Amino acid sequence: MSESRSGSGRESAESSGETVSSKDTKEVILEATFRALSKHGYKDLRMRDIGEEMDLTRQVIHYHYDGKYDLMSSFLEHIIDQYEGSVVVDGDDDPRTELRARVDQCLFGPEFEEFSHWDRMKVYHELYTQAQNDGDHREVFNEHYERIRGSIVEVVEEGIEEGVFRDVDAERMGQLVTDVIHAARGRRISLGHEDAPEEARKAIDEFILESLERTE
Amino acid sequence: MSESRSGSGRESAESSGETVSSKDTKEVILEATFRALSKHGYKDLRMRDIGEEMDLTRQVIHYHYDGKYDLMSSFLEHIIDQYEGSVVVDGDDDPRTELRARVDQCLFGPEFEEFSHWDRMKVYHELYTQAQNDGDHREVFNEHYERIRGSIVEVVEEGIEEGVFRDVDAERMGQLVTDVIHAARGRRISLGHEDAPEEARKAIDEFILESLERTE
Repeated sequence: MSESRSGSGRESAESSGETVSSKDTKEVILEATFRALSKHGYKDLRMRDIGEEMDLTRQVIHYHYDGKYDLMSSFLEHIIDQYEGSVVVDGDDDPRTELRARVDQCLFGPEFEEFSHWDRMKVYHELYTQAQNDGDHREVFNEHYERIRGSIVEVVEEGIEEGVFRDVDAERMGQLVTDVIHAARGRRISLGHEDAPEEARKAIDEFILESLERTE
Repeated sequence: MSESRSGSGRESAESSGETVSSKDTKEVILEATFRALSKHGYKDLRMRDIGEEMDLTRQVIHYHYDGKYDLMSSFLEHIIDQYEGSVVVDGDDDPRTELRARVDQCLFGPEFEEFSHWDRMKVYHELYTQAQNDGDHREVFNEHYERIRGSIVEVVEEGIEEGVFRDVDAERMGQLVTDVIHAARGRRISLGHEDAPEEARKAIDEFILESLERTE
């Protein structure tokens, strides 16, 4: 696991108490949470492990967050925000190109300065499975799922309107593509299938998108 | 959560020590593990919780299993065996019918006397996500994944041979269908989308299987 620390987190941690804003402090805590999660996993994570990953005292965590659960909810929203903020798709692209770009972005992820797409996805998928027992996290995941699915539905609908795609149930197509992406990421993480995202892209291309293109 | 106990487990537990075979005892322990997991989840499960779900003394668990981890590995193999033993597909069916039957069986599950398909799937998906940190479980899941995927590949190949399906990459098709099934089950469990399996079946029908049928 990478031991490097993000520039901004480091600076905040080393500034005097007066100049560290509440926002910066939270950023430091969330970065430390990422490092601690990468080392210990969610199941075994203790607040102490997070404290050991930052230069601020552990009391700061308790000042800002009401326990491990509250911290994990903020953390989940933080990584989802980073993802959604990073999605770059050219709105002028034709629907075919845009659909493929969106699939690729979800499968292979954007570049991040610290912690790779797969470091993030490991945490994401672990919390996703735990969401069955957790109403708050479930809501965050549901909203994220709806935005991802919705962005695919939108491109499919555009393509249908423009006559590029045949007339299908765009909602169902969006759900299918989102499911395949999710399963391929999970398979890479849980089963170690390194080629799962690449294989999923080929399957989506060959079977799903090709069937969209066909004109009856 | 259901409090009912399976007939066989109950009988074994109440028999005298002399007549309880090692196989029966293990069955009792595994059934108790299921009940305990349903109540507490994997993350928080203690051996004590399993002991409280059976009439045998807790020492019996330690006699048969080398700790929680060893017990969980046996448990995982146990529920997968039950699944694979329960798959009933008529080999005489035509490939179209057989493919749909296999998809349905994976999505909706067979009937079990105790613990529904979804009780089982909750445990299965939780352990699946944990398998990223667990070589032994990962191997069990990989073998199971290969058998499920393989059974779909086989039907697709049969259909191609018989000229019912167009000539596609059967391996890739098997992987796509398996991924969609897995994602839909996970979405029902984690996000609470009760209709996910039904929706996945429609999507598989409408987009994937239909594209198989098309003759160029």
